[in-house]
Amino acid sequence: MTHEIAVIPGDGIGQEVTPAAVDVLEAVDVDFDFVEGDAGDAVKEATGEALPAETRELAADADATLFGAAGETAADVILPLRDVVGSFANVRPARSYPGLDAVQPDTDIVFIRENTEGVYSGIEAEIDDGVRTLTRVITEDASREIAEFGFSYANRNGFENVTIAHKANVMRETDGLFLETAQAVGDSFDVDYDTALMDALAMHLVMHPEEYGVVICPNLAGDMLSDLAAGLVGGLGLLPSANVGEDNALFEPVHGSAPDIAGEGVANPSAMILSAAMLLDHLDYGGEAAAVREAVEDVLANGPRTPDLGGDAGTDDVTAAVVDRL
Amino acid sequence: MTHEIAVIPGDGIGQEVTPAAVDVLEAVDVDFDFVEGDAGDAVKEATGEALPAETRELAADADATLFGAAGETAADVILPLRDVVGSFANVRPARSYPGLDAVQPDTDIVFIRENTEGVYSGIEAEIDDGVRTLTRVITEDASREIAEFGFSYANRNGFENVTIAHKANVMRETDGLFLETAQAVGDSFDVDYDTALMDALAMHLVMHPEEYGVVICPNLAGDMLSDLAAGLVGGLGLLPSANVGEDNALFEPVHGSAPDIAGEGVANPSAMILSAAMLLDHLDYGGEAAAVREAVEDVLANGPRTPDLGGDAGTDDVTAAVVDRL
Ligand SMILES: CC(C)[C@H](C(=O)O)[C@@H](O)C(=O)O
Ligand SMILES: CC(C)[C@H](C(=O)O)[C@@H](O)C(=O)O
Repeated sequence: MTHEIAVIPGDGIGQEVTPAAVDVLEAVDVDFDFVEGDAGDAVKEATGEALPAETRELAADADATLFGAAGETAADVILPLRDVVGSFANVRPARSYPGLDAVQPDTDIVFIRENTEGVYSGIEAEIDDGVRTLTRVITEDASREIAEFGFSYANRNGFENVTIAHKANVMRETDGLFLETAQAVGDSFDVDYDTALMDALAMHLVMHPEEYGVVICPNLAGDMLSDLAAGLVGGLGLLPSANVGEDNALFEPVHGSAPDIAGEGVANPSAMILSAAMLLDHLDYGGEAAAVREAVEDVLANGPRTPDLGGDAGTDDVTAAVVDRL
Repeated sequence: MTHEIAVIPGDGIGQEVTPAAVDVLEAVDVDFDFVEGDAGDAVKEATGEALPAETRELAADADATLFGAAGETAADVILPLRDVVGSFANVRPARSYPGLDAVQPDTDIVFIRENTEGVYSGIEAEIDDGVRTLTRVITEDASREIAEFGFSYANRNGFENVTIAHKANVMRETDGLFLETAQAVGDSFDVDYDTALMDALAMHLVMHPEEYGVVICPNLAGDMLSDLAAGLVGGLGLLPSANVGEDNALFEPVHGSAPDIAGEGVANPSAMILSAAMLLDHLDYGGEAAAVREAVEDVLANGPRTPDLGGDAGTDDVTAAVVDRL
């Protein structure tokens, strides 16, 4: 069976790390058909649209999508793409790797971020001169869906502790609904769980990340907490992510287009290659996914390394080293 | 001239650290008249109200208020109290101290948090079964006021870099207004400033806190980022804060009531004593404020220390050591 994969490199280092992930997927024993689409600043400049209709359709019709990064237009690209693939869960593992400098070398956390609502509902208005509002939406359905996904994920992947993040002491009705819905789901699973105010959680994650496993978050909290965790493990160059829907999904590194180093061939492809590993997992090639992850870990431990990790290798060297180990 | 200070110890360790701060204020050469009020879980249990009208009035009429902590009712106490004192700015310095274990020992950041609106506007509704909304409010006036406060603070205190935190790529109208208003204010000051998406900022703060000085934030972002920074410098036991209004102010540690250690006499009084130093600064006793800060730093460096910092001293020992140095 051949899987059709939409490949959307986007801007900046997206153009460099996306081909790296494709190289790795071509090196494993699975049949893929790659179809490439444009998105981001460059295509907006050329056509007026950051996410052309053809690219949307590509992602909608594919079995899965690999997305690199976008520049200024990031929100105009990634938010609609998440919608196109019907993704309700954003899965963001943050792990520290042996041998790499990390603020907290004992981190292994998976953030399960609600991916459709909260402040991302995007309903804003100017209700008077200099007075603007945004309507944050929380629904019981989306809260239940993300909690079920998170607790199942914890069970399936052997995590023994789950944390539900919230700010229900201030957002009493909305995060109150998120919290009570997620707790009810948690009670029906055979996993230990805790709840945490997201401000206190930010502090505890910085001091004691080793105490956390799976963290289920409302949308914006997940955005911030997963980036915080990226800081703990050595930066965004290491964090993959999956935007998971009912029957489609999109995989992207947590990092952006990094205009400061774009075009130099030194971008760290690890986050993107690890995103490809998540794609393999999603399509049920668990063995191949594990092999890719092991290869990346081995290269992270032994080099070659890109400059963000203190090395002087290029994107291609790292990619070749990963492919070599497969 | 005698200053009337409302003292509201609240719950848990608030009962232990608040008297410590009063001891310290009594040891400096300023005339204070302390009037005590109740608030929190205990008074709610007894009277049905977490913040009795008498306590509100005490805070409203005083020259400044010292607040300890509250338990489950924290939001019912602190949010109205911030309102009572008309506080528009929440000032949260996060510093690492020599000789103390810290995740990032080179941190010296002051968060200037907008203290009146954002998601704290608290306008929530159930618009359908299982569908709830919260109206996040951002106004030009409050954004200008907090930015002016933040940039003046940076100037006055010798900070050379200011960062404006926002999420205007998603909250385009609301955080867009916050951002453009704060930028316009920044342009009128002789201070370098930058803007940062709050997710990326969370990562950078974890990795390179030494690059930041004053960080101006919308309300909830300031809540999370300042707690994150507490994690960097060794925990909430060290972070004071000021809720500053036009002609009144309230000072409180960033920590909560810590029910796990309450009643044992081992709570770290540093955050509360440093909050009292901020009160001294606010009432224009800059010399006394500096003396208190130096005494606290000296005790943090040389002991005695409470258990949260690896010592075995009690709250009273630490307080006595601080008073001793004044
Ligand atoms: C680009 C932006 C809209 C996006 C988000 O906020 O989700 C990004 O920060 C991310 O986390 O993928
Ligand atoms: C108790 C709570 C309402 C409060 C807040 O969110 O502001 C607390 O977290 C703080 O930071 O002082």
